[in-house]
Amino acid sequence: MTEKKDYKPDLANDAVMKASVPVPDDFVEVHGIDYSKPESRNARAKDIVKGMKTMGFQASNLATACEIIDEMRHWKGKHKSEIPEAERKGQFDDDGYQRTTIFMGYTSNLISAGLRDTLRFLVQHKMVSAIVSSAGGIEEDIIKCLAPTYMGAFALPGKGLREKGLNRIGNMIIPNENYCKFEDWMNPVLDKMLDEQEEFAKKRGAEALDADAPFWTPSKFIDRLGAEIKDETSVLYWAHKNQIPIFCPSLTDGSIGDMLFFHTFRASPKQIRLDIVADIRRMNTLSLDATRAGMIILGGGLIKHHICNACLMRNGADWAVYINTGQEFDGSDAGARPDEAVSWGKIKAEAHMIKLYADVTTVFPLIVAATFASE
Amino acid sequence: MTEKKDYKPDLANDAVMKASVPVPDDFVEVHGIDYSKPESRNARAKDIVKGMKTMGFQASNLATACEIIDEMRHWKGKHKSEIPEAERKGQFDDDGYQRTTIFMGYTSNLISAGLRDTLRFLVQHKMVSAIVSSAGGIEEDIIKCLAPTYMGAFALPGKGLREKGLNRIGNMIIPNENYCKFEDWMNPVLDKMLDEQEEFAKKRGAEALDADAPFWTPSKFIDRLGAEIKDETSVLYWAHKNQIPIFCPSLTDGSIGDMLFFHTFRASPKQIRLDIVADIRRMNTLSLDATRAGMIILGGGLIKHHICNACLMRNGADWAVYINTGQEFDGSDAGARPDEAVSWGKIKAEAHMIKLYADVTTVFPLIVAATFASE
Amino acid sequence: MTEKKDYKPDLANDAVMKASVPVPDDFVEVHGIDYSKPESRNARAKDIVKGMKTMGFQASNLATACEIIDEMRHWKGKHKSEIPEAERKGQFDDDGYQRTTIFMGYTSNLISAGLRDTLRFLVQHKMVSAIVSSAGGIEEDIIKCLAPTYMGAFALPGKGLREKGLNRIGNMIIPNENYCKFEDWMNPVLDKMLDEQEEFAKKRGAEALDADAPFWTPSKFIDRLGAEIKDETSVLYWAHKNQIPIFCPSLTDGSIGDMLFFHTFRASPKQIRLDIVADIRRMNTLSLDATRAGMIILGGGLIKHHICNACLMRNGADWAVYINTGQEFDGSDAGARPDEAVSWGKIKAEAHMIKLYADVTTVFPLIVAATFASE
Amino acid sequence: MTEKKDYKPDLANDAVMKASVPVPDDFVEVHGIDYSKPESRNARAKDIVKGMKTMGFQASNLATACEIIDEMRHWKGKHKSEIPEAERKGQFDDDGYQRTTIFMGYTSNLISAGLRDTLRFLVQHKMVSAIVSSAGGIEEDIIKCLAPTYMGAFALPGKGLREKGLNRIGNMIIPNENYCKFEDWMNPVLDKMLDEQEEFAKKRGAEALDADAPFWTPSKFIDRLGAEIKDETSVLYWAHKNQIPIFCPSLTDGSIGDMLFFHTFRASPKQIRLDIVADIRRMNTLSLDATRAGMIILGGGLIKHHICNACLMRNGADWAVYINTGQEFDGSDAGARPDEAVSWGKIKAEAHMIKLYADVTTVFPLIVAATFASE
Repeated sequence: MTEKKDYKPDLANDAVMKASVPVPDDFVEVHGIDYSKPESRNARAKDIVKGMKTMGFQASNLATACEIIDEMRHWKGKHKSEIPEAERKGQFDDDGYQRTTIFMGYTSNLISAGLRDTLRFLVQHKMVSAIVSSAGGIEEDIIKCLAPTYMGAFALPGKGLREKGLNRIGNMIIPNENYCKFEDWMNPVLDKMLDEQEEFAKKRGAEALDADAPFWTPSKFIDRLGAEIKDETSVLYWAHKNQIPIFCPSLTDGSIGDMLFFHTFRASPKQIRLDIVADIRRMNTLSLDATRAGMIILGGGLIKHHICNACLMRNGADWAVYINTGQEFDGSDAGARPDEAVSWGKIKAEAHMIKLYADVTTVFPLIVAATFASE
Repeated sequence: MTEKKDYKPDLANDAVMKASVPVPDDFVEVHGIDYSKPESRNARAKDIVKGMKTMGFQASNLATACEIIDEMRHWKGKHKSEIPEAERKGQFDDDGYQRTTIFMGYTSNLISAGLRDTLRFLVQHKMVSAIVSSAGGIEEDIIKCLAPTYMGAFALPGKGLREKGLNRIGNMIIPNENYCKFEDWMNPVLDKMLDEQEEFAKKRGAEALDADAPFWTPSKFIDRLGAEIKDETSVLYWAHKNQIPIFCPSLTDGSIGDMLFFHTFRASPKQIRLDIVADIRRMNTLSLDATRAGMIILGGGLIKHHICNACLMRNGADWAVYINTGQEFDGSDAGARPDEAVSWGKIKAEAHMIKLYADVTTVFPLIVAATFASE
Repeated sequence: MTEKKDYKPDLANDAVMKASVPVPDDFVEVHGIDYSKPESRNARAKDIVKGMKTMGFQASNLATACEIIDEMRHWKGKHKSEIPEAERKGQFDDDGYQRTTIFMGYTSNLISAGLRDTLRFLVQHKMVSAIVSSAGGIEEDIIKCLAPTYMGAFALPGKGLREKGLNRIGNMIIPNENYCKFEDWMNPVLDKMLDEQEEFAKKRGAEALDADAPFWTPSKFIDRLGAEIKDETSVLYWAHKNQIPIFCPSLTDGSIGDMLFFHTFRASPKQIRLDIVADIRRMNTLSLDATRAGMIILGGGLIKHHICNACLMRNGADWAVYINTGQEFDGSDAGARPDEAVSWGKIKAEAHMIKLYADVTTVFPLIVAATFASE
Repeated sequence: MTEKKDYKPDLANDAVMKASVPVPDDFVEVHGIDYSKPESRNARAKDIVKGMKTMGFQASNLATACEIIDEMRHWKGKHKSEIPEAERKGQFDDDGYQRTTIFMGYTSNLISAGLRDTLRFLVQHKMVSAIVSSAGGIEEDIIKCLAPTYMGAFALPGKGLREKGLNRIGNMIIPNENYCKFEDWMNPVLDKMLDEQEEFAKKRGAEALDADAPFWTPSKFIDRLGAEIKDETSVLYWAHKNQIPIFCPSLTDGSIGDMLFFHTFRASPKQIRLDIVADIRRMNTLSLDATRAGMIILGGGLIKHHICNACLMRNGADWAVYINTGQEFDGSDAGARPDEAVSWGKIKAEAHMIKLYADVTTVFPLIVAATFASE
């Protein structure tokens, strides 16, 4: 080839070869992990996460989630002594400084899946302030004190499992025996709870329904389970011990509901009452009182909406980390990006917020190792 | 090319050219819609769905969903007169024949999105027997009687919206004014409800918490809203009129919760009590009493689990249609296939069941037009 | 309840009751289908789609996709006679008016799934101008002329299927016999193609590789298959007949690749050559010459990128409809929203564009019935 | 509460309290990471992965992916000296033992996202045997030697970006200037390639198209780019140096295609020819010759199908790891589970195989740190 003509179709050339503006100084270059460095061999959590910070897609979102978690857990306000007693609200650290009220939400399946040990670690060490879970997230924590959950497979056919009394949750198996054990454990507890209810009803008479009556609510019911279980592997045990409230407005939607249903026959004509109005007051008050509020929401649905809605009461959370696989296209609450919550006043416009699109089980062990458990 | 050698690597040839067994007689050929036929031009719902029956992927699942819905709505049992009075449970059609108890669940966003008109149509014409929704699915039905929701876009930035008081739900906008109107409407209703509670508390005294006390529960609360709204566009209005119960164990998780929270200040030292135990008894009893049970579940999360769990009480539903975009890989309840519910006894092994993977809004108008609204 | 106090926590009240700006006049109210109207019973495609236009989430996106398709197919420019002969480029309708060059892309699985009949209808009636498909989208069209594909199920275990020689594609089954028949059909065609190649190589000698040499390219190869198959059910047959080019740069990635691999042994020391450079020139030239360009892209991956990239040559398409289930979070090309293509100059900033998040099989039958097949 | 009646509805009780079979001995208990152990603080990759092995959902799939990768990279067959010279095919390790032929596939976006450093590490150290990528995966590797990619955000509006000549890939930005630099770099290379083609065409004359002619194919073209770039950060550089072939049947689908398109004008009446038939022979031969075959496929679409299809030639791979976010419901190839490939003979029924549902960027740094980079 001796001569090079440079004719090209103008339209195509102009479109393909369009000049770009100079790159602003604050642009950050994309680069990955340098495996020639010794610290990237069998790397530590913090080093892996650091390397992901300058990678595209969800790698950088994972790193940002860790940064936001570190910001919310390290935030420190005034000392108690600087605050008039009437205004001493919200959370304080052991040294008496204001700290972030961290709302953590998780769906039932994460307790089943073995993240329970991780979540318990956070509760045991008072690293979170309040919890919202779905009904299964409550009962499976107790049931795991009575009998184990087993690894299984997504493809196991349901018919054969039902014949054997083996219940499938994704790629795990829970023998139905576990629920029988749970009933044996629950019935005396429910009987006691009803007795206590009867007691105050008699005492209070016509005022038994008043706001200050010691009515059962989901959060009190859960606290009682934590008090009864006396098992250090349990999230509820430590939540009770550390007085970290666990909310679950739909507490009847699962095995506890089954037990309560059966108990209505056992207790007739009496019946345990579980009031959800007192709990919404308790939950919203936590948000109102918080000096700063942070959200760590693992999964979608009710638990996500409930925390966000509470944070509206204070005109928005200061930090927000969502981890789930929901997408926005179908308008599911799980799929809503944090920016949708900004429009509602549930997250402050200036908050640091991120949504990490991932199955929580694939990323939360790494995230916790690089944040809460990094020291 | 004059000579053709037929040498090929044996391993590759054997693998690629592996013989297959004769095709069984009951195999159904895949084929699509023949657009040369006049009925496929601007086609009618039933013709489109018929054409999708022999197409792969979710097209056939959509057609199967229609078949299952038709099976559950057309099933007819014995006449009342053939059944001893003590055993006359479950649903009967207008002519006195047993019919399927159809549990329908839908998430809040579908009421917002305009499927409300479709869902109302089903309730107005008594085509379903009981409903489970999330809190937003209740309140948005009422709010839409007071002020409209508007079309928007997924990409509208949250900060600007919040400044204008415009809340985003996916690609829709709800002015905050709508919630102010809702509060104005709700407060007198809540006052009346508290008055009625006070009345029976005084009357019953120490027995005020008994099982037969006229306690507020989410389903009774919702029924009352339906009675008060007096608006024929409302799902709740028709549910009240046709005595179709609507369950929502987490009724406080949204704007109604905000109103109830504010009302606790207004009502102090009194407080409305919303008991979720009586509702789980009511819900499970509907399942137990059903001659046949069918599930139509639009969306995931609580509403899906709650219907499935109730159907466990009768050892499984007879028909099940799930429509959502959840995937099983992350163990979310939304993503669980019907076969997982079989392992739990929530759907009978021999039931007709399908999961249609789709944003409900893209498929339910077609499905309803081809089933409930086909005649 | 006699007196109503209106104390509420200010912070919460201000946040929840934030005033909103007056709703702009051009806001469109969300509403659904009115099933009381006779036309909504067993409704026609256009009526269903019209009803979806004011619904949230993907319902309105589906309706918008129909509008955009109607815009692109109804656009009409100048008459040939008004245009100097040298400038008469792009597509013209039967009356001699400029019309949109419509690029349609589809993945292999849609041909398998029975959308082939729909796609063939569009090609048969010259409703599209050029096609991009993946290798399977080419070969399965031919194979379906030789033997059928069957309905199956997603859960059929692979081991048993392999033993029987039954290949699974999602919830469909293709007996391996079909590929044996395909080889029998292909071999004589490949022999002829090689003969023709040899002929021009001999004739051209050292100039055999020049740009004007009648080299085989994927698009010419596909056209030849269409010429040979002589079957009116085939997309390729009608594409050949109507001279609608079908591009497939990765034509060797499937059964045709297997046949070509085997043929290299049969043909040795000769070999068919398939040049992809001449095809990129042909594809890009179609884009450059188009008076207006529209994209209808069904599925993701190569077929989506290839059409978009060609439209960069003309500084962007004028209309774009994407239908797939890809999400943007993982940076897959399938998941990229049309707005990402705007940044690259592949879609004009002012173009009408939409992404509909759906399994194509659930929505395209309805869309075609309401657009191309509406008259 | 004094007396406890145990009446419960029989049907419900039997269903809920169904007895389960004794748990088989080989059942594995679900449990998570014990953060009380020192090694779980800022944990190392292998410890995190070990902890995930007994967790549900994708956590265990991630751990299984690591196990399978370790199996394939540690497998060791016979020594060369034990094998007759004519049968010495496939890969051998540095000590002369047979080792697994590892096919690695990755989509373009992963090179853009910063996984390039990780992938380069694997190629540099000869940890993989052959690569399949899409066109962007080739050109972006070269372009990154000329100018960097930058971090951006998913929500940046396309119109403003286009005006500035900034192209968006997910949450990253590539200035258009990078492509101008790429053209400057490519043109002399393309000129040389055409010269070499002309040379052999002249020499071979009518036999220029024969199988043994040194025709350009995508894999040779890519190898040449690797030879020219002379940059140790480049995957292509090390692939050339270590003679690891990189396949890309659709090499024209991107910026290289743009350059080749423009080059057809520059080169006229000559034209570079890129033959894809010779490459399918090369690719399939690698599979046929492999003593054992392993697949590591990052992302979906063409790159996944191409590796699987090649492995059909040897009646299936021995190990398979898929990592992507595709779902099976819409029949996309990306979404197909490994078990679908078993039905086609692309993976052996007895192979160890896993699909990990995740954005590759969130998991692959951890996986590599725990496997290839663990020592």
